Amino acid sequence: MPRWEAGAEERLAQAAYELYIERGFDHVTVAEIAERARLTKRTFFRYFADKREVLFSGAAAFQESVVAAVISAPDGVAPIDAVVVALAAVGTGLTELGEGARQRKRLIDTSTVLQEREMIKMAGLTTSISDGLELRGIPEATARLTAEAGVTVFKTAFERWADREGSVEFAPLVHEALDELRAAIRSDDMDVRAGPANHREY
Amino acid sequence: MPRWEAGAEERLAQAAYELYIERGFDHVTVAEIAERARLTKRTFFRYFADKREVLFSGAAAFQESVVAAVISAPDGVAPIDAVVVALAAVGTGLTELGEGARQRKRLIDTSTVLQEREMIKMAGLTTSISDGLELRGIPEATARLTAEAGVTVFKTAFERWADREGSVEFAPLVHEALDELRAAIRSDDMDVRAGPANHREY
Repeated sequence: MPRWEAGAEERLAQAAYELYIERGFDHVTVAEIAERARLTKRTFFRYFADKREVLFSGAAAFQESVVAAVISAPDGVAPIDAVVVALAAVGTGLTELGEGARQRKRLIDTSTVLQEREMIKMAGLTTSISDGLELRGIPEATARLTAEAGVTVFKTAFERWADREGSVEFAPLVHEALDELRAAIRSDDMDVRAGPANHREY
Repeated sequence: MPRWEAGAEERLAQAAYELYIERGFDHVTVAEIAERARLTKRTFFRYFADKREVLFSGAAAFQESVVAAVISAPDGVAPIDAVVVALAAVGTGLTELGEGARQRKRLIDTSTVLQEREMIKMAGLTTSISDGLELRGIPEATARLTAEAGVTVFKTAFERWADREGSVEFAPLVHEALDELRAAIRSDDMDVRAGPANHREY
């Protein structure tokens, strides 16, 4: 990379965030971002596919970290626990960035286009987690449902984290959301189905 | 509507499906669809926003039917049961169309653009179901998680239905998927948490 482009990616991202907040995502062009960063449009497109991608440049690394954690969970850990522990751990890293992560979330909430992109990234995360579970020997159907549940839990926890202010621990929000999901879909006769006490033969 | 356009929407949809199957979704233009239907591009755009929408024209009606069923479920029905019964009922209507519904699913699976659109429609369905549950007095957090779980169950059941051949009952697939989701996210100590037998005081 030529010396005059040192820190180009960070400068472009910084300029983009500033402009998106000042004018609204829909009203900012790549030319304006490049101008504010004192770089060219061509340089912008060397780092980002389009102006949306500035907000999603960390998504691939996030996904890889989650999947690596799912795959490397100790043997014998239930699939849902492997997923939720992985999402809590990687999400903790993300939320420790503090206001940057909240700002990104707020920006996404302002734009349908960005919300759609976020949805697509979350669907990619779900598929990757599911594939990771299959590598652990989990049958496909269970892997898929577990991954969907895990991502639902993550989204819920992340929204709650973003809605609060200051330093908020992320992991407890994940476990709280999982407990709530379990309670929400529990059947009225779960006691009969799930309780070994009821099946035990004396 | 002028007489010469009678059945225009159906003719356009029929032409689009034929062409998408023959050439692949990405390689068909609106002009070609209109030509095959012996109508104009302008007429096409009177019925569909773009060539993707041909595959999603039923989505709004589907969503409305599901939400209406959720809202009108009898008092005292657990939220997850209201959602799953609604999705089973409306999904039964959909799957009884038979090969048309399978063909649509297969077409969507061939194109990233269509998969993304389907995802967005499913997200809209989730939000509507959640809103419907809130109208039943369910707290927002539970409503959202229940709606997410319901849509996950529906997607799973629909994929299984589409993967089979001939006449397959849809409702049992929905209930099977819900049971599997429950099992997938059950905690190891669910027997202790959920079983009234364990909490009962003698």
